[in-house]
Amino acid sequence: VSLVYKSEATRGEIWREIFAREMPDLPFHVWPEVGDRASVRYLVCWVPPENLTEQFPNLDVLFSVGAGVDQFDFSTLPADLPVVRMTEEGIAEGMVQYATMAVLALHRDLFVYQSQQRKEAWRTLPHMPAGQRRVGVMGLGMLGKRVLEQLRPFGFDLAGWSRSGCDLDGIDSYAGAEQLPAFLARTDILICLLPLTEETRGVLDRDLFACLPVGAALINVGRGGHLNQDNLLHALASGQLRHAVLDVCDPEPLTQGHPFWSHPHITLTPHIASVTHAQTGAQTLIENLRRHQRGEGMVGVVNRQSGY
Amino acid sequence: VSLVYKSEATRGEIWREIFAREMPDLPFHVWPEVGDRASVRYLVCWVPPENLTEQFPNLDVLFSVGAGVDQFDFSTLPADLPVVRMTEEGIAEGMVQYATMAVLALHRDLFVYQSQQRKEAWRTLPHMPAGQRRVGVMGLGMLGKRVLEQLRPFGFDLAGWSRSGCDLDGIDSYAGAEQLPAFLARTDILICLLPLTEETRGVLDRDLFACLPVGAALINVGRGGHLNQDNLLHALASGQLRHAVLDVCDPEPLTQGHPFWSHPHITLTPHIASVTHAQTGAQTLIENLRRHQRGEGMVGVVNRQSGY
Repeated sequence: VSLVYKSEATRGEIWREIFAREMPDLPFHVWPEVGDRASVRYLVCWVPPENLTEQFPNLDVLFSVGAGVDQFDFSTLPADLPVVRMTEEGIAEGMVQYATMAVLALHRDLFVYQSQQRKEAWRTLPHMPAGQRRVGVMGLGMLGKRVLEQLRPFGFDLAGWSRSGCDLDGIDSYAGAEQLPAFLARTDILICLLPLTEETRGVLDRDLFACLPVGAALINVGRGGHLNQDNLLHALASGQLRHAVLDVCDPEPLTQGHPFWSHPHITLTPHIASVTHAQTGAQTLIENLRRHQRGEGMVGVVNRQSGY
Repeated sequence: VSLVYKSEATRGEIWREIFAREMPDLPFHVWPEVGDRASVRYLVCWVPPENLTEQFPNLDVLFSVGAGVDQFDFSTLPADLPVVRMTEEGIAEGMVQYATMAVLALHRDLFVYQSQQRKEAWRTLPHMPAGQRRVGVMGLGMLGKRVLEQLRPFGFDLAGWSRSGCDLDGIDSYAGAEQLPAFLARTDILICLLPLTEETRGVLDRDLFACLPVGAALINVGRGGHLNQDNLLHALASGQLRHAVLDVCDPEPLTQGHPFWSHPHITLTPHIASVTHAQTGAQTLIENLRRHQRGEGMVGVVNRQSGY
């Protein structure tokens, strides 16, 4: 029984050491080195190799190194192969930092003040108390809930939306397509933290923007595929949206000359909001492997129906 | 007995209405209208009028509309005139938002990513876990403590420094000139929240910067007078500091053509971190007036010895 790691090399070296110490009986191969293919039971990767079942005929579990699994084409994976997302603490820590930073920057008009600085303009903008600023999170998985929790002590008027709804202590929760317009109508700063599935692809489009109050702001920390790029440019040009903070794009890296790069009302970062920490990520993976070996349920197993 | 308000006009109109409702027996004059000078017992202002004692011979209390009192020249004020700072909740709310935004932006390299965006560069920078980022607050009054409390759930390695020290639950506290070098040596992101006094004027200088780790960052939300501007430019040029976020300057507005405006490693905002909210500010003032009229101690009375 062995494991193959196929992802970023620096983390691979760190994980190799941790596995040598913590699970010395499980051979840890770093792709393209794989050892005996028939022995490989565990694959840990971002993008799986082509011909997965031919490469590794006895695979027991496919682990994603990230929180998302939208890089997998489920139609090419064996129907009974468990797929497991990464759920370690470092992912949440980074996401919470980034989302809070973006909300505060939009709330306090940081991007406008930066533009004023370039013009040598010393001008105070109206200040809105946090209690009057309505922040809404789309997607109420572990990350969405953590972001709401961290925003709570700032005193914002918070709400969340997800497909099936969810109980958020003291925070308004909206559920399903029916309640989406009401959620959007009360949201000045919208954070997209949805999983990317067939259902959510392109959800950030003209129709959705039109439901937001005029001058709302968007933070996309989901996936580039959630966003209709042309519709965003139109919404910014019309003033329907005032600013967008985008950590994700389609494709990544964004193509040279793309209008997002130089847009005065788009802040773009290269998919850095959330990072799987090498140390805690290895521990999370090891705990799941031990659970699997003991025949227990693993944490983060993907539901193929919902796609997350 | 009457009150004179001498500050920003919009807030003056809001306060006039609140006072008419809450303290109908106390005439509320908005400068330059003052009514009978001899009746004026309370002056609420940012900058007092010249010849204060001639203007208002029977003044009982001088209230600052802001958290600071460094705009007052104490040598020109009657020695026995109580001077009271504004301590309302809105000031803390704004300061906590701004300081958290600046810390997260520096921690997550937002300003570097913005500069990369202008160059169409999609490049990931190394990510440091919050627990390894050492954030230090100079000045442990109400605002400094609140900023530390709000930063706590992000998991940063926090510390505080003040002249006399202070007990911070679970956060390292340093005190006095003797412990300042040790505090600075462990601080990657330094937040200045000191009051401006003769003792603290120019404290952010070459010697202080030299005690910080190479590549540290500065957030000045105290006063422009805390900062030696030439020394900051040198520290940024040498790389001793990597970036400064400045909400305060000397003078304000900053003069046209000043090198701070166009500096790639200075983020400048026009003294907006903390704003006295009209509504809650009026309530705080009214509570202090009632205390004074009942002969009780007021909240925020300034110690003339320490200057804050």
